[in-house]
Amino acid sequence: MMNERLLKDINFIVELDKMKSIYRRTEVINERKKEDDAEHSWHIAIMAMVLHEYSDEEIDLLKTIKMLLVHDLVEIYAGDTFCYDKVSNGDKKDREERAAEKIFGLLAEDKGEEFKALWEEFEAMETPEARFSASMDRLQPMLNNYNNGGGTWKEYSVSKKDIYKRIEPVKYSSKELWEFVLYMLEDAYNKGYIVKD
Amino acid sequence: MMNERLLKDINFIVELDKMKSIYRRTEVINERKKEDDAEHSWHIAIMAMVLHEYSDEEIDLLKTIKMLLVHDLVEIYAGDTFCYDKVSNGDKKDREERAAEKIFGLLAEDKGEEFKALWEEFEAMETPEARFSASMDRLQPMLNNYNNGGGTWKEYSVSKKDIYKRIEPVKYSSKELWEFVLYMLEDAYNKGYIVKD
Repeated sequence: MMNERLLKDINFIVELDKMKSIYRRTEVINERKKEDDAEHSWHIAIMAMVLHEYSDEEIDLLKTIKMLLVHDLVEIYAGDTFCYDKVSNGDKKDREERAAEKIFGLLAEDKGEEFKALWEEFEAMETPEARFSASMDRLQPMLNNYNNGGGTWKEYSVSKKDIYKRIEPVKYSSKELWEFVLYMLEDAYNKGYIVKD
Repeated sequence: MMNERLLKDINFIVELDKMKSIYRRTEVINERKKEDDAEHSWHIAIMAMVLHEYSDEEIDLLKTIKMLLVHDLVEIYAGDTFCYDKVSNGDKKDREERAAEKIFGLLAEDKGEEFKALWEEFEAMETPEARFSASMDRLQPMLNNYNNGGGTWKEYSVSKKDIYKRIEPVKYSSKELWEFVLYMLEDAYNKGYIVKD
């Protein structure tokens, strides 16, 4: 007789494979392809390992990494919403709330609640871990755009103002990372990677 | 004046993007494409979050997840070695040792050593965390093969004996996961997904 809780876990894990087929707008650096959610989530989780020492507030690294591994799972059903698309962002919250019920509902109740709570904490951006996680989530695509000579900034003529608004969580999370971000964005602007003020 | 330690970190993080272009033999489940190392590493890190309660020994989950996020970084320079390829596995250790010096050498010395130690612990498979990590690393491609009607087992006519040898770390890490593995592999064999004894 198979352990039912474990079978739910396995079913959830198999469903998560879909993250490898949810494509973002950003391209990877070393070949011409759109990045997917699994790649992005891995990258920001390991970034937290590398960069957590620069957090202004003390953070629980395990909680931070868990949040980053989980933060995009709702996109399995809600799809990726381009951060600079003001229309799609209008109903994003509702779509993602329904998706959260569905994906975390695959797990046994206590485990589903634990995972959902991590996602909610990330979304609310109110704890030090959530603020640092948001910084990783915002910084990674910017590093890719910068190393791709502009990437989606150029492709979609994203304004400097909108980019600064998007990356702002870093300011409230890490003085040192914020200093780096300011340097990188000014350099990107001077190089013509950002084409609109 | 930019923080030199941070610039090394950023350089390392940008180099890690190459993990998204290191392709494994296994395919993802929901479309026809080879899985890459970043996707694989994300999947097994979140698997550890889901499955750690089944570990027979007590494990430090943060250490386990860190190990899983880092375990394949050497492949950026050493490439992916197909686990059932006995020839390429011959010089794998040397190739990966040189790659480790190179990739972890990008970081400040103390941080590089911390990351390298995690990789070495994973490779040695002697601690409870390393044994559990090995189980995640072995189980994930098996789940993909099973859900792809055989996948690389069929494509490369891998024998049942070699598959059991590959998945054996699970036996020494979790009774419950081992019971599931035995059930899945017998079912795969009965369905013709494994074609050689």
